Amino acid sequence: MAEASRTSSRATMPSRPGAEGAEALARLSLNTATVRPLDAVAGPDLIAMVDACARAGIGWIAPWRQQFAQTPVADAARAVRDAGLRVSSLCRGGFFPAATAEERRANVEDNLHAVDEAAELGTDVLVLVCGGVVGKDLAGSRQMVEDGIAAVLPHAAERGVRLGIEPLHPMFAADRSVVSTFGEANALAERLASPWVGVVADVYHVWWDPEIDTAIEGAREHLLGFHVNDWIVPLPDVLAGRGMMGDGVIDLRRLRVAVEGVGYQGPIEVEIFNQELWARPMDEVLELMKERYLQTVF
Amino acid sequence: MAEASRTSSRATMPSRPGAEGAEALARLSLNTATVRPLDAVAGPDLIAMVDACARAGIGWIAPWRQQFAQTPVADAARAVRDAGLRVSSLCRGGFFPAATAEERRANVEDNLHAVDEAAELGTDVLVLVCGGVVGKDLAGSRQMVEDGIAAVLPHAAERGVRLGIEPLHPMFAADRSVVSTFGEANALAERLASPWVGVVADVYHVWWDPEIDTAIEGAREHLLGFHVNDWIVPLPDVLAGRGMMGDGVIDLRRLRVAVEGVGYQGPIEVEIFNQELWARPMDEVLELMKERYLQTVF
Repeated sequence: MAEASRTSSRATMPSRPGAEGAEALARLSLNTATVRPLDAVAGPDLIAMVDACARAGIGWIAPWRQQFAQTPVADAARAVRDAGLRVSSLCRGGFFPAATAEERRANVEDNLHAVDEAAELGTDVLVLVCGGVVGKDLAGSRQMVEDGIAAVLPHAAERGVRLGIEPLHPMFAADRSVVSTFGEANALAERLASPWVGVVADVYHVWWDPEIDTAIEGAREHLLGFHVNDWIVPLPDVLAGRGMMGDGVIDLRRLRVAVEGVGYQGPIEVEIFNQELWARPMDEVLELMKERYLQTVF
Repeated sequence: MAEASRTSSRATMPSRPGAEGAEALARLSLNTATVRPLDAVAGPDLIAMVDACARAGIGWIAPWRQQFAQTPVADAARAVRDAGLRVSSLCRGGFFPAATAEERRANVEDNLHAVDEAAELGTDVLVLVCGGVVGKDLAGSRQMVEDGIAAVLPHAAERGVRLGIEPLHPMFAADRSVVSTFGEANALAERLASPWVGVVADVYHVWWDPEIDTAIEGAREHLLGFHVNDWIVPLPDVLAGRGMMGDGVIDLRRLRVAVEGVGYQGPIEVEIFNQELWARPMDEVLELMKERYLQTVF
């Protein structure tokens, strides 16, 4: 079993001396859902996204597993290496709850496979979207999540991949994740008590929480990722309603400073599901993303 | 100053002996937004809604202030009395945060007026939707809510109207209420420390909360209302996406039993914003509402 690296030791890319912006930019990661909807039939493939990041000077990328249907994971891993990029995380494992034990076993199997893909891709973080409620039973569904993660953990440790529980906004509790708050994700990670499990915080999901400062402090030992975007008003869509940083109401700088305050120095992923952004040329989106990241997150 | 009645003493209508269903039905209340969108240019007016409730044997009604533009509050009060109905609550006060002190004073003024309307209508509960975030400052906006309620409380006590803080689903934190959890609403009510302030729980807003049992227990002394509907999947709309009881994933019976466990025996409001229901004849909606209420809440 490999030794798990700690949150605070996640390496950052070297900065150009005297260039604070360059140091910040060196932590920027493109979550690929930002530049193409997951179910799109056309658009740039993962290789094209890797090339675009390299052109834009973005050093990190976070693919989605769906992309491996078009770009096999070995090819993706090679492209990332050749471009000098690193992979901040793989999206996503999870979706553990199900009505039958057989389905729950199949879900665990799928997560074991996701762990392998993460390892092959060269990332040490697999993001978990834990799954929604089954049979109106929130407590039971949450237990299924805990049991599912516990079942995946030995293999994750074997492959050197950490499982990052991502609390999802409560509006996704029914269909995507019964883990709805940052504090609940912390508590789950603590009960699982393994260096191979932690929490990934996305501002869109957690910004509203009156307990967020306590939760960030509670994640000191296990914060595995930090995602930025914005909450725009009015919300154009539940799923595809996120905004570019600076277009909404979230105090991004405050949250970035807070996670750094508990030792997080890892990559910062931009993950935005938004129809208008998807309609724009990829290179243009990456430039806007860099600009807004520097203006609003730092 | 009138003496505030306690949660557990909210009277219920007499039940027909041997008829459990009748006892349950006697607590049913129509929140009028269920049968007509607030901004509709046509549709039944408040008097017609009162009459429909009387026809359907529904003993409680909960109007919205917008309706007084069409039906003056004195007329509404008379119609309710003449029909033998009672008013479970008035929707709504709140919306305290604002960028300037002048605007915040105007918001308090509007709430004082809402208290008068509630008193004139003959209800002792004014529901508060507290207002969204101002200037990306969640903590500051929450303080504005607390200051606003504190400024309204003396008048509420004078008029015998209790202010019911309704925690809204976190997806409304930006534009409708920075009070996003049941626990937060409890804490706010406790800090205000008055028999004239409490909490109103709507299942749509709070069902997902991992701390809900603790929150319900925490509301033992100040639960002023309980609203039912359902969370349907996929959510058709953020604002108008609620479902009829039984069409979604919420365990309504469990929550009703839980609030009764802390002494709540008051009216149970059905409040549903849903395009499909709005398109149906009012009497048909009331019959469906009664049927589903008995099937899923009791």
